[in-house]
Amino acid sequence: MENFKILNIKQSVFENNDRDADKLREELKGKGVYLLNLMSSPGAGKTTTLTKTINALKDDFRIGVMEADIDSDVDARTISQTGARVIQLHTGGMCHLDADMTRQGLYGLSTDELDLIFLENVGNLVCPAEFDTGATKNAMILSVPEGDDKPLKYPLMFTICDALLINKIDAAPFFNFDFEACAARAKKLNPNIKIFPVSAKTGEGMEAFYAWLRGEVSQYRAAIGK
Amino acid sequence: MENFKILNIKQSVFENNDRDADKLREELKGKGVYLLNLMSSPGAGKTTTLTKTINALKDDFRIGVMEADIDSDVDARTISQTGARVIQLHTGGMCHLDADMTRQGLYGLSTDELDLIFLENVGNLVCPAEFDTGATKNAMILSVPEGDDKPLKYPLMFTICDALLINKIDAAPFFNFDFEACAARAKKLNPNIKIFPVSAKTGEGMEAFYAWLRGEVSQYRAAIGK
Repeated sequence: MENFKILNIKQSVFENNDRDADKLREELKGKGVYLLNLMSSPGAGKTTTLTKTINALKDDFRIGVMEADIDSDVDARTISQTGARVIQLHTGGMCHLDADMTRQGLYGLSTDELDLIFLENVGNLVCPAEFDTGATKNAMILSVPEGDDKPLKYPLMFTICDALLINKIDAAPFFNFDFEACAARAKKLNPNIKIFPVSAKTGEGMEAFYAWLRGEVSQYRAAIGK
Repeated sequence: MENFKILNIKQSVFENNDRDADKLREELKGKGVYLLNLMSSPGAGKTTTLTKTINALKDDFRIGVMEADIDSDVDARTISQTGARVIQLHTGGMCHLDADMTRQGLYGLSTDELDLIFLENVGNLVCPAEFDTGATKNAMILSVPEGDDKPLKYPLMFTICDALLINKIDAAPFFNFDFEACAARAKKLNPNIKIFPVSAKTGEGMEAFYAWLRGEVSQYRAAIGK
């Protein structure tokens, strides 16, 4: 018996996703829940990053996770081992989640007694950038093997994210990745983006990301009087 | 002055992409052109693989390349150094190419005096799998750092591809990648898929892919009497 359920998400009927996303952000404030939308290419390390982050923050906050995938439940299975409340969302072939699909997931997970929810979006640098999920903040992972030119090729993703984790820095000796050039390209698109070079596998650099997220959630909760 | 041009692709108006794709495949046969649609996640190594493949095959075939990206021309710039005829296609935010968009690219590139054309699709494991481009065959690259579980998460891509290159095998010591498990997952979805473990960077394993592609194009040309 698995300790998570699988929900098949329906395609949205709402015409104005941006308005629906703003509405969802307000609903989340009402519930005192901070939602972080985590995006990346396939295999950049979203699930490993989440596993480590949940273990680091689970004494500070009550954490839930929505794992969005076209198919399979391997990520929900992995994340459920942290003890966090988890739901696997199947998007039925859809390449992204919009606000209404995210709301369906939140109902399935239940926001009750949660402070922080992670949405692990579909692995894709294109479409998820185009649809506001209604999350409080957006974060993305770029992994070193993908290359430092990705801000040039997928500019919207870097533009809409509040935080950028550059993951797999432990593998840097194997790849020609120019951290300064990558950071400059990301900052040119988005001067306020917070950049965290990390290895989710070894833990290197992760403390800075935990500290940022701890501050984010604490400030959010203080602002809404929680 | 660059030796390639940049074409802004328009969204298609055709309702039946599958029919249009079949039509394009027939048009290509009429012209004696073999079109290989190459897909992968961002940063899996499409451009490096193409560069090496063009250099290996350019004495056998007259080669053209269409580089599809949402933005930037870094790939066309790299590929143009091989001497192949190259065009950069900008998809205007679109996450994939369909048959009509591919046809626009072919007109921009010109199929005259070409035997083999590569379409480097948008870096995305989701949407490009859903749209038949009209290519003669489909190939994909999965890179070792992405993980061996990708066939479970992106099954359609593995189902529609004739060839699977597992790239960056030189970095395998850094990653827990189970080649046998990955191959079994891909073969379960697609028993006929040809699998090539390669390192486009070091050249390891690439000869087998060149041989496959040489055979493919030669048989195709023989079948249409070229």
